[in-house]
Amino acid sequence: MAVRTPDPDPGDDGGERESLSGPFSGAPSGPNTNPGWLSEVELAEARRRLPMLYVEALPVRTDGMGMVTQVGILLRATPLGEMTRTLVSGRVRYGETVRDALFRHVENDLGPMAFPLLPPQPAPFTVAEYFPLPGVSAFHDDRQHAVALAFVVPVTGTCEPRQDALEVTWLSPEEAASDALAAEMEGGRGTLVRQALASVGALR
Amino acid sequence: MAVRTPDPDPGDDGGERESLSGPFSGAPSGPNTNPGWLSEVELAEARRRLPMLYVEALPVRTDGMGMVTQVGILLRATPLGEMTRTLVSGRVRYGETVRDALFRHVENDLGPMAFPLLPPQPAPFTVAEYFPLPGVSAFHDDRQHAVALAFVVPVTGTCEPRQDALEVTWLSPEEAASDALAAEMEGGRGTLVRQALASVGALR
Amino acid sequence: MAVRTPDPDPGDDGGERESLSGPFSGAPSGPNTNPGWLSEVELAEARRRLPMLYVEALPVRTDGMGMVTQVGILLRATPLGEMTRTLVSGRVRYGETVRDALFRHVENDLGPMAFPLLPPQPAPFTVAEYFPLPGVSAFHDDRQHAVALAFVVPVTGTCEPRQDALEVTWLSPEEAASDALAAEMEGGRGTLVRQALASVGALR
Amino acid sequence: MAVRTPDPDPGDDGGERESLSGPFSGAPSGPNTNPGWLSEVELAEARRRLPMLYVEALPVRTDGMGMVTQVGILLRATPLGEMTRTLVSGRVRYGETVRDALFRHVENDLGPMAFPLLPPQPAPFTVAEYFPLPGVSAFHDDRQHAVALAFVVPVTGTCEPRQDALEVTWLSPEEAASDALAAEMEGGRGTLVRQALASVGALR
Repeated sequence: MAVRTPDPDPGDDGGERESLSGPFSGAPSGPNTNPGWLSEVELAEARRRLPMLYVEALPVRTDGMGMVTQVGILLRATPLGEMTRTLVSGRVRYGETVRDALFRHVENDLGPMAFPLLPPQPAPFTVAEYFPLPGVSAFHDDRQHAVALAFVVPVTGTCEPRQDALEVTWLSPEEAASDALAAEMEGGRGTLVRQALASVGALR
Repeated sequence: MAVRTPDPDPGDDGGERESLSGPFSGAPSGPNTNPGWLSEVELAEARRRLPMLYVEALPVRTDGMGMVTQVGILLRATPLGEMTRTLVSGRVRYGETVRDALFRHVENDLGPMAFPLLPPQPAPFTVAEYFPLPGVSAFHDDRQHAVALAFVVPVTGTCEPRQDALEVTWLSPEEAASDALAAEMEGGRGTLVRQALASVGALR
Repeated sequence: MAVRTPDPDPGDDGGERESLSGPFSGAPSGPNTNPGWLSEVELAEARRRLPMLYVEALPVRTDGMGMVTQVGILLRATPLGEMTRTLVSGRVRYGETVRDALFRHVENDLGPMAFPLLPPQPAPFTVAEYFPLPGVSAFHDDRQHAVALAFVVPVTGTCEPRQDALEVTWLSPEEAASDALAAEMEGGRGTLVRQALASVGALR
Repeated sequence: MAVRTPDPDPGDDGGERESLSGPFSGAPSGPNTNPGWLSEVELAEARRRLPMLYVEALPVRTDGMGMVTQVGILLRATPLGEMTRTLVSGRVRYGETVRDALFRHVENDLGPMAFPLLPPQPAPFTVAEYFPLPGVSAFHDDRQHAVALAFVVPVTGTCEPRQDALEVTWLSPEEAASDALAAEMEGGRGTLVRQALASVGALR
């Protein structure tokens, strides 16, 4: 199991630690007075009792007419050293708006210069339901029952993932919809990529 | 505070008790082996630490062409004896799909003969965010931070609310969008009714 | 060129004749006093000058929870005797609502006992743009520039296509999304089927 | 009837002349070899026989999180000298994509420095149907049966309407949803503004 260092910024709980795709994790182990903060033990307990609310984002590049030209897929190392591909993903905190959570996780996974254009609409293009048991839905997550509001987010700046384990690969819509990519994506997210592409008319 | 009797059916946790609009409540107080079940104390604790996932539904009657002709609004008595108006609403349980939760709460609030036609789309028409502090969004809920996936659900049968405190009033879209109704609805749900009507082209 | 007989019912201009997928055609050749009626020559002329407004529908069967379990694909014989697969499709007439056009074409292609449940929402899941020149978009139509509002329509009755050339085949979502089916569908509609499946969470 | 001068740029048919809200009009009166071009007489004829395809846009300003803060409403003088309020609006030409038409009309009505961010999704938030006869739907247009795909379009630059008769007024969502504004808007577009606001969660 990877050694986990406390997050230097208690106001930022990080994409890796809270991410749907990251390793099991919680919150800073140090003292925190925000009642919305959960210790790792508490979060682990909650994960066995309640559906956890997540946001997920497929970062895209668009041309001047708003048409999606490229899709950003994250490369991530699991604690076991395997490389997997995933989306921007993370938990919504107590007291945080969905919009704020989406912005925070995009910034955390793509860096502060990504300049995302969050959609004005509050409705996600789909709701992805992750269950601990594979087969209940198209998505699964060993750790928890998570329900993710999924958005397509155009980014206009430079993406520099903050954490060493992360890299963003820009793919054409065709590559992103391929079986080859789907096989590399964790938790069934190849399906989510295709649904995202369909929502922007970029799935053939 | 109202005395709360345990739910006679442990498989049905009730619209009132888990409802966004109902009084503070949890789960059967008797023993339950499902780890997804929370005691009232545990649920109360979770509500101060995590956003709770809800579904909400605006029941509608449609004509033969799918056009919305009437809107069903629930009348409910609070524990303090006040009458308020609300929507079908309730929590998503651990391990339960959003679709199952939606069906369960519609049936609980409208009775087993309502014959709802759940939408084939998993995406809600909007996401309503309830915060304990009024003003953060259009919606508030003293008890918790709740995030509700909101759907319009045509019903084709007879609605007979199961619980004494409930009644369904069928209104025209114009009446449902009125300021008078909005003033009677709890938690800011007048806004949610208008957004629902807009999504079906029935808001003028 | 196929000999075209006048439609016996001037109030019904037929899925075949006005269909995006049917052969070039217009309206009854007999006199008609409705100014919205176009002769074949006039419609042919309009098709070279204006985008034509269409509706398209993917008929589906749902389970009791609203989940799509089967997809209806039409089999049609072209005037040249080739068999192709397509969707419910047809032109919106002058003075007709989109909803009425959708109902009319579903009934025309699936028969009067199909009992479709038109969606309450006026917004299509996508807009499919057909151009005479292949490659401008994912869709093409030799005859015209057509813009189709595309809907998923649950049907609850028995589908009996009215015209000899038509047959409805019910497929699983997986079969409907396959490359094999896409290759048989005319005008690029395999893409439209996939986008429809994605909109209902049934594309893997 | 207003005297109409030929458009100086035959490649740009202008918001006023083709706009849903502008006066009756067609295309350059000079010779044009594009078969998709219609003379005024031809367009007038088509308008009595076919539904015309339009796009409409509600320009908005968003904050850094994508939340709509302001809404742009156009002020326009009719040929009779009356002032009315309207949205960005215009016809889709033969051979033109919906996206291109949307961009062209936004640029025509708001100027080349508006820098619109067209949505990546091809699906409109609603479909507005205008009939010559009031009462068929929420929208009417004396001149024609028009079907408009309606979008919310964030703009990031400076809006300088190209034509003297136009001015853009920026309103808060509350002002834009008011009965006072609705009363000034032509063709029932107050309803369209409210539906647009609802789609971005900005209708209260």
